[in-house]
This record gives sequence, structure tokens and C-alpha cells, in this order.
Amino acid sequence: MESIKDRVAIIGMGCTKFGEHWEKSFHDLVIDSCYQAFEDAGIGPNDVQAAWIGTNNGYHRGTGLMPLHLANIPITRIENACATGTDAIRNAAYAVAAGVYDIVLVSGVEKTKDYGFSGLPVSPPSYPEMAMSQTRPAVPMPSQFALMANRYFHHYGIDPKQGKISLAKISVKNHHNGTLNPLAHMRKEITVEQVLKAPMIAKPLGLLDCCGVSDGAAAAILTRPEIAERYRDDYILIKGLGVACGDEYAQTNPDYNWTYWKENIVAADRAYKEAGITNPREQIDVAEVHDCFTINELLSYEDLGFSPRGKASDDVDSGFFELDGGLPVNPDGGLKSFGHPIGASGIRMIYEIYLQLRGEAGPRQVSDAKTGLIHNIGGWPGAFTSAVGIFGRREA
Amino acid sequence: MESIKDRVAIIGMGCTKFGEHWEKSFHDLVIDSCYQAFEDAGIGPNDVQAAWIGTNNGYHRGTGLMPLHLANIPITRIENACATGTDAIRNAAYAVAAGVYDIVLVSGVEKTKDYGFSGLPVSPPSYPEMAMSQTRPAVPMPSQFALMANRYFHHYGIDPKQGKISLAKISVKNHHNGTLNPLAHMRKEITVEQVLKAPMIAKPLGLLDCCGVSDGAAAAILTRPEIAERYRDDYILIKGLGVACGDEYAQTNPDYNWTYWKENIVAADRAYKEAGITNPREQIDVAEVHDCFTINELLSYEDLGFSPRGKASDDVDSGFFELDGGLPVNPDGGLKSFGHPIGASGIRMIYEIYLQLRGEAGPRQVSDAKTGLIHNIGGWPGAFTSAVGIFGRREA
Repeated sequence: MESIKDRVAIIGMGCTKFGEHWEKSFHDLVIDSCYQAFEDAGIGPNDVQAAWIGTNNGYHRGTGLMPLHLANIPITRIENACATGTDAIRNAAYAVAAGVYDIVLVSGVEKTKDYGFSGLPVSPPSYPEMAMSQTRPAVPMPSQFALMANRYFHHYGIDPKQGKISLAKISVKNHHNGTLNPLAHMRKEITVEQVLKAPMIAKPLGLLDCCGVSDGAAAAILTRPEIAERYRDDYILIKGLGVACGDEYAQTNPDYNWTYWKENIVAADRAYKEAGITNPREQIDVAEVHDCFTINELLSYEDLGFSPRGKASDDVDSGFFELDGGLPVNPDGGLKSFGHPIGASGIRMIYEIYLQLRGEAGPRQVSDAKTGLIHNIGGWPGAFTSAVGIFGRREA
Repeated sequence: MESIKDRVAIIGMGCTKFGEHWEKSFHDLVIDSCYQAFEDAGIGPNDVQAAWIGTNNGYHRGTGLMPLHLANIPITRIENACATGTDAIRNAAYAVAAGVYDIVLVSGVEKTKDYGFSGLPVSPPSYPEMAMSQTRPAVPMPSQFALMANRYFHHYGIDPKQGKISLAKISVKNHHNGTLNPLAHMRKEITVEQVLKAPMIAKPLGLLDCCGVSDGAAAAILTRPEIAERYRDDYILIKGLGVACGDEYAQTNPDYNWTYWKENIVAADRAYKEAGITNPREQIDVAEVHDCFTINELLSYEDLGFSPRGKASDDVDSGFFELDGGLPVNPDGGLKSFGHPIGASGIRMIYEIYLQLRGEAGPRQVSDAKTGLIHNIGGWPGAFTSAVGIFGRREA
């Protein structure tokens, strides 16, 4: 097995504003994001030799990219729940690394306003067994993450009231960062007090501990480094990609601890090995972490090796993950503030890291960011897809 | 751009019986086909380092493979309409060629009995624009292929009655071949007269010109040739993979001729270039062609370079594509008789070529088959995904 390190370069990216795009179609979002990426890379649609589209419930196969009128190239649809975008990048990256294409396009897009939140089984016929089976998670998503929060507080002897304040600080941080991001869905400062007083969704998670769903799209142009050099000096390199899927729902697995996710640990380990990262807390300069719920960002700090086990709250309280902290996390606002168009989210995370590594993140720029990480998950506890990507500057 | 030729080997495959599996679940079909492939390759589930599942409307992301309890590996869902299976193989092949994994699993599966035929927009919210837009094909699938048949007969001055007899012969051939295949869905000899007298679906296509839909699954184990040698001497090599997607529905494209598909021609050209095939009629020993409707097999003979333009009927009438002909097509019965579980079909085609190249196809064995082709399409005319794969014996 060979590492993907330094074999694939990103030469252009694009991202739409995330939000409620009642006035735009799925295809409008595709065109906006892909043409941004084309222009950023200095290429046209006819330069693209293969494409991948990550979407959960939009257009099937390649029809989502039809309005780009790509030149009879292969187009593959990838679906991997909320980790769809990263997995689309990953499949495209392997095709580039294999040398079968020189320049490829990856598009992630979701128009949730047209079909509801695609992460839930809105279309029951798609999940015939799960709808009837005991192996199906018995509780909706916020409640599952709430179980993790309660178990985590109990396991580490954290006072639940104090724990909820740490969670609130994560939401406050991400909302603050989002105010600095013109593309973010919810650009509004919030306070710890507001988070604590927000309507309870699933104890201890209140409304402001939960991300919403958004419409939006993001896109990337990948190539090999020797080709990238023809287009720009400041391309970004993939340093590592690790993906791990769980194989049993946590509810039916008596060994499941609920204070960490094995999928995260395995995925991060693979990505770190590929990238040669041995001390992520020190070596990662900026990260995008899957904050669908505040507790998920908190636990992921530990699974990703950013914080010691049971100590993530301390790092939150000390401001370690804030924009001016030791390891800024979700500088773009994350899922909580930037938004969560399912199939686009993984590519949106990479978009932010791409900007940060190129020093183009404006008021939310992390100083001298050389190595960035994205963490993107999808599914149910115990059966998550966890995807971790490491990206670096050319010289990093 | 580098060719995929001889960089990826198939060391094991499996396929369930296709049919109406009221008594089996989606997961039953996955387990049956994947364990056949494991046993054929001489590996276990723990040897698999990454997996791809091709399915149109079954389980989303990797949950379709959960009962295999794979070891926290990455699992990607691929969807590409009726070409899903081949595209899943293609994405897996590129990852293997890139060297990032040594041994991977590809599963294609559909349980149409649980959710209807997934090729049609049974779930309208998934296709919000198409459902309202003039760009949507205005006629159902059989009618679209009927348009092609009528135009083809007209264009080449073929008497429609005679043309319909040629189409009927294709159905009779595939049904005959299917009687020799214990896994086939419809194992029944039919006559030209029966095809001609069958209820009309969309003139000139009658019931017996149309394939049905089936439940079923197929699976493959891919690796690199140097690793394949550790497992068996008689592995099969990928010689070429070409995929092309159309970019405009034929109904709205005045340039669309309806007697050929540009997607087929581009896909075949790419696959032939990779494989070094210059005269497919002579160099391909056995082929699986996407016979969703008899006219599709007929037109594909020409698009794939098996027959000169306008002359495919002559080759049908001379028996060129029959089991003992110059280029046997669909020796396993094809979609018409073997069946069509959407996401599995492309892998089923490769399964048959795999058997044929290894001399294991029993009573339907094509003598001394060294090079085989599969042709697998999905979608609507003008916006098809056409996938062509070439496979060869190790020494070929």
C-alpha cells in the first residue's frame, strides 16, 4: 500500500454561499461553484477529463453536472451520507494518482429545499429493512449525539452543567468565526447564555448545539503536481486521506463505549500515517471538524489527537481552538454557522483549508497555516463513515 | 494519461441467481455474492482493505455491506444508473492501480422487489427540476428505445417488418443462452414467432423485446497483478475501461441522430485505445452487451465496431452473435434472460466474461476466449452513461 502523499494537487476551488436558496436550482449551485473552480484554476470545462459528483438525494448519476456540458467525459456519482464530499474527492484523487486522468473536477452539491434533509430516510422505500429492523437506530440523530454527551460527561466525571457550558463555547466560537465568512449561512454572534437557554432538543443538546441544513455547493479541480506547476505556483497538496466505516450500530453493540468513535481513530491514524504526522496537536495548524452537534466537535478533538482523553473541555475553556488559539478549529464557522448542504460539506471543509493554506482567508486567516486537516463524518454511531484528510502547502 | 491496461487483476468473483427473491433480503444477496467471491479468491473479509458498493436505491453509503463486518475499511457507494456496477469496478480499479490498496471488494446489488425499479424516478422529490422541466425526457424508457428502432429502420431503408424479425432473433438468442445458465432469471426458450406476437409495448418493441428487472447481486475482488500471482495463476486482467456521459437529452438536441449513441462510440474508443484493440470484430472473442431492449443490442453492435453501420441486422441474420458464431454476444443470456438487478448488472457482465476467459462457462463456453468485452449503459438517450470494459487472460 502506497501513500497518497504529494501525488495529487488542488489547483482550483469554488464554493457558493450556503443558505436557503429558494431562488436557485440544484444546477444553478453546480454552475456557480464549478465555474468558480474553473476560473480559480485557469481552466475551462473542456479541460476536464473526468468528474465526480457527491450528492445524497439530488440528481442521480452524472445528470447533476449536465449543464456544464462537459465533453462526453466519465461522471461518477458518489454517496456516503454526510461524508459524501470527502469521499468524492478521495475517489477522484485515486484516479489522478493512478495517472489515468490529468485534470478532474469534483463537485459536491445539495439542494435540501427541494427534497428535505437527505440524511434522514425521507424516502422509506430506500431503507426497507432498516425501517422494520431492530438493527436500526431507535432514536433520531440529535438524540444519538445526546447519548454520547451524557455518557462522556459521566465517564470523565464532568459536571453536566459545566460540560454543557463547554459545548456552548464551541457553538459560540463557530458562530463568531462564521460572522467573518461572507459565504456562511448563519452569520450571527451568539452568547453562551443564549446557547444554554435555547430550546432543548435532546438533553443536553439545545437548539444552538445543533447545525441546520443548507443548500449549497462546492467544487475542486485536481491534478498531479507536475501538471499543477503549469497552472500555478501556489497549489495545495493532498498529504493524507483516511476513511473508516463502522460495521455495527452502537445501539446493538455492547462493546460500544459512546465516548469515542473507533471509525474516527482508524481514519485519523491512516491519514496521519500517510502524511507523516506523529503529533497532530503540534503539527496541524488549522482544522475543519465535523460539528453537526457541539458534542461531536468536542469528542473529535480527542479522537483526532488534538486533546488528551477527557481533557477536550479544558482546551475549549482555554480557547485553544479559537481563531487566535493554538489550533484553530472551524475558522469558517463549521457546519454550525457556514451550514450543511450534505454532499457539499466535505468539499466546503477542503475549500476553507485551501484558502487558509494559501493565506486567502481574509479576517479569519490563521497565521502561517502550513498544514490543515478536515474531518467529515456520516451515518449513525457505530456505523459511521469517518473521513480525515490532511492538506499542505507545496513547500510544507 | 496512462492506460489502465494490465495494472489491475480480478482474482475472485461471485454472483447470485437473478430473479424474484421474495425470500431474501438485500443483505442476503450481498453476503451470498461476496462470500462466493471471497472463496473464489481464497481470501476472507479481513483481507479486504477497501470496498465499493454499487446500488441505485438500496442502502445508502456503506451500510449495504455492514453484515460482512469488514474491518473498519473505507466503503464507498457508487451510483450511475444502469451502469452503476461497471463504474463501481472502475473506481475500485483506479484505487488499486494507484497502489493505495492491495486487495479491494466491489459489490453490486439491487433488491428491486423492495422498492420498485430504481431506474425510474419512483421518488419524485429526487428529481425536482426534471419532473417539471422540458429537458426531461417526455416518454418512458421503452418508448425512447422504440424511437431509436423506428429511426434506425428508416435511416437505413430496412423494412420495419424485417427489422422487427432481426430484433426478435436477438431476444431468441439471449433466451436460448439463458437456458444454459443456472443463475439466469428467465430460463425459457422462445421463438421468433412468439416475440412477434407478444403484446406491443412501444412500437416496434413488444414485451419480449424488453428486459425485466430482477433482484440479484454480483461481486469481485481486485488486486494488482504482482499480488494476484500469490493467489492464483489464472487471474483475469483489466485491459481497458472507457466511460462517456452524454450532456444533453436527445429530445432537445436537434443534432441527435437516433441511430447511434455518441456516448458508446467515445467510451468504446477509450477502452479500445487502452487495450490496444484496433479491430474489435476480429479481436474480441466474447462480449456482454447492454440488451435492455433488443434494439439497444442491435445498435450497440455498430457503435462497438462489431458490425459495419447499417449492417448489424445482416450479422444477426447470419448468426454471427450466436454462441457458435464469430463473436458470441451475451452468452449468459444478457439482461433479457439473466436479468437486470440495476446496480449488479455491470458486475454480472464482468462475471460472465471472467468465467468465459477462464474456460468455466460450462455448456455456454465460447471456445478459446482470450479477450472479452462488456458494454453497460445507464440513463436517457443523449445523456447516457456508456461504460465499456475489456478483459483478458493473463497471457493474452
